[in-house]
Amino acid sequence: MELELEKPAVFDLIAAKDKDALEEKLKKWLPLELAELCEELNPEEQALVFNVIDREQACQTFEELDFNMQVELLEELRSRQVQLILNDMSADNRTAFLEQLDKERLNKLLKLLTQKERRVALSLLGYPEDSIGRLMTPDYIAVNKEWSVKQVIDYIRNFGENSETLDVVYIIDEKGYLVDDIRLGDILLADDHVYIKDLLDGKYLSLLVTDDEEVAVDAFSKSNRVAMPVTNSGGLLLGIITIDDILQLAKEENTEDIQKLGAVEALDEPYMDVSLPQMIRKRAPWLVILFVSEMFTTTAMSFFEHEIDKAVVLALFIPLIVSSGGNSGSQASTLIIRALALGEITLRDWWRIMRREIMTGLLLGVILGVIGFARISTWSLFTDIYGPHWMLIGLTIGVSVCGVVLWGSVMGSMMPILLKRLGFDPATSSAPFIATLVDVTGLIIYFSFAALILKGTLL
Amino acid sequence: MELELEKPAVFDLIAAKDKDALEEKLKKWLPLELAELCEELNPEEQALVFNVIDREQACQTFEELDFNMQVELLEELRSRQVQLILNDMSADNRTAFLEQLDKERLNKLLKLLTQKERRVALSLLGYPEDSIGRLMTPDYIAVNKEWSVKQVIDYIRNFGENSETLDVVYIIDEKGYLVDDIRLGDILLADDHVYIKDLLDGKYLSLLVTDDEEVAVDAFSKSNRVAMPVTNSGGLLLGIITIDDILQLAKEENTEDIQKLGAVEALDEPYMDVSLPQMIRKRAPWLVILFVSEMFTTTAMSFFEHEIDKAVVLALFIPLIVSSGGNSGSQASTLIIRALALGEITLRDWWRIMRREIMTGLLLGVILGVIGFARISTWSLFTDIYGPHWMLIGLTIGVSVCGVVLWGSVMGSMMPILLKRLGFDPATSSAPFIATLVDVTGLIIYFSFAALILKGTLL
Repeated sequence: MELELEKPAVFDLIAAKDKDALEEKLKKWLPLELAELCEELNPEEQALVFNVIDREQACQTFEELDFNMQVELLEELRSRQVQLILNDMSADNRTAFLEQLDKERLNKLLKLLTQKERRVALSLLGYPEDSIGRLMTPDYIAVNKEWSVKQVIDYIRNFGENSETLDVVYIIDEKGYLVDDIRLGDILLADDHVYIKDLLDGKYLSLLVTDDEEVAVDAFSKSNRVAMPVTNSGGLLLGIITIDDILQLAKEENTEDIQKLGAVEALDEPYMDVSLPQMIRKRAPWLVILFVSEMFTTTAMSFFEHEIDKAVVLALFIPLIVSSGGNSGSQASTLIIRALALGEITLRDWWRIMRREIMTGLLLGVILGVIGFARISTWSLFTDIYGPHWMLIGLTIGVSVCGVVLWGSVMGSMMPILLKRLGFDPATSSAPFIATLVDVTGLIIYFSFAALILKGTLL
Repeated sequence: MELELEKPAVFDLIAAKDKDALEEKLKKWLPLELAELCEELNPEEQALVFNVIDREQACQTFEELDFNMQVELLEELRSRQVQLILNDMSADNRTAFLEQLDKERLNKLLKLLTQKERRVALSLLGYPEDSIGRLMTPDYIAVNKEWSVKQVIDYIRNFGENSETLDVVYIIDEKGYLVDDIRLGDILLADDHVYIKDLLDGKYLSLLVTDDEEVAVDAFSKSNRVAMPVTNSGGLLLGIITIDDILQLAKEENTEDIQKLGAVEALDEPYMDVSLPQMIRKRAPWLVILFVSEMFTTTAMSFFEHEIDKAVVLALFIPLIVSSGGNSGSQASTLIIRALALGEITLRDWWRIMRREIMTGLLLGVILGVIGFARISTWSLFTDIYGPHWMLIGLTIGVSVCGVVLWGSVMGSMMPILLKRLGFDPATSSAPFIATLVDVTGLIIYFSFAALILKGTLL
């Protein structure tokens, strides 16, 4: 963006508090660009920018800012400005902002809203957190199905100004119940005298106000809609959800999923904004759970202390064996957890998945096992670290790796399915179970094969 | 969806090949619902469904199907039907379908397109794979900035039918260069006699036809647009991209990211559609790389063979120590890789991140270290598995865990930054480096502390 070049000049004007020149300079800037500029300014300087940009720019720029910046900026602005911004904001963005405030701040700001906007805000805040109700906006165009195309177009041209989107028009009956939706483009394409009811095809998708927001993301990504109506369970039209909010939400959900897979609780904030105590609180619990469950490996190992004492060489391969199982387990669980989340597989497919993973795990295990055997054979040509029984040791490692990889693939794929069946979120809860199961049983597999193959020689 | 209830009846009608009744039944179904129905049918039955639904339904339902189903279905349909579907499809969806075909099939289908559509298809296929050019559609409304609002509305009402979206109208100069974009709603809200040029604010965002599609996802998720214009480097308007394609793409990219973090190459297809040889090809390379690099742990361990020989008890904790480092490393790397992808942090922040992770790692390490020490102390009350020097062993484990977790957090956070600096994709390439570094150095840390603390007693 060429505006990047203008930034130094803008910084100078801000430093000089030259409002007129600044106003002239920023007139053409997009809200997004203004928000990026604000990120490099302190709250006082941000307030200066908000003083010179116009009302619409101010509201939209405010919507683009991070929550923390929004709060700090509001402290700096005159209350008349705060009032304008809050009342101008779209209801869904305002709800997203208000729901993060503490009670005291929330009450202070609610008082600044007009009676009408306050009613809207309070009603949206009344829906459960993460519900579709919080996400919807009541600013849409709804028309009666008995109207003609001309009536609708005239209505939109007169009253459409406050609508969040004009892309889709909602058709309701006299009692406010949703009948259908129709794209503005399709209305325009029809002749003036045609009645709306004759344009309807009854093919609409709607969302329930009490559903989880994930349902909305799912519905949007499966259909080609830019907006969807929201109703109560009786079919009364309450609001709409637009796709731009969904794109944002999908990104946040994916971040959560990725963080969960990395055994971190969802941060809910950018990495740099999380304070140290918060960071510990998000990371310590899973690390402790994993650590405590990994202690079973110590218990398992203590059963084989005697074997290690006799053949210390066995200890050398413990990290290799354990990590092979862990890696194959995390491959399988990543694929299955994602496929479950996308709805590509369902719990009923477990047997087909199991068969696939047995075959896959076996083949992968053979590949790694052969590499392991080859490594030990090659080393033995040049050193005698493995002693005269190097071939038996190589065989033990090869067979164990194969078994551990097979076991890791099967456990990694079945554990998410089992956990989901039991009602847990597989993304959150799989990691410690898989790690423990695969590591502990991996050790057992290893030392069992060792006992079998090395009996009479090393053991 | 209540249509779920109608499915058994529909299956019966399909089995009975009762076309009239089936046509009546399916008339009200959405393309999405028809596509879901098709998933449960064989290609022959699907063809029957496509025979009874109308032309628009057929085209949209076809667009919803998986690529493999699309190919199989086309084999079953009459070529006149294939022709209608392909010519009706939106250019971007058609390109997405055609680019997956082998050369022979592609040529056969291209011949079925009208001359105009073939030109469009070939030009879109000419852009690099994964570029914005492949994603755009040339079906949009562009008007001259000298026109009046009334002229534009009349133009849309007469010629808007084939446009992919009417939500946004593009304003061009006489040579076809993009001047601005404006939402249809905003045009409607203006008076008939106003000139378009007086409505423009010069605030538009456009994409470059040669840019990577990730750029488009990024641009959409940062702005509140439902469609964006695509130009060449000179500013000539070539097409538009609509947000519904972006939502789909964002989902695919996130799946790729998640799979990469699980050390799998991106599957590019649903889990169940991947054949066994493909599955091995996607999973074996990373597993082999990880296995070979983990072999360094065996080398590292061989330096401590003597210590293990003297104090076998040390071997018991190897999996615990190694996995603690791995877990803290994967927490840190997951957070940093995601934050890099979202643009929350940049490479310049490395020193701030390092300081954060040193503090976080130290605190997490102390927490786990204390738990480790407590575990050994408690066990020693009831068994004498750790012998008379249990307190020294506990100290060794506690201090080592602390060091390993600190080291894991720092390495896990710095490695993605370093790899990105060197020009690699941190999501793909971090895992083996982090695993090897953390595991090998974890063992060295462990045995060094053991030598220090246990010298003169066990060692």
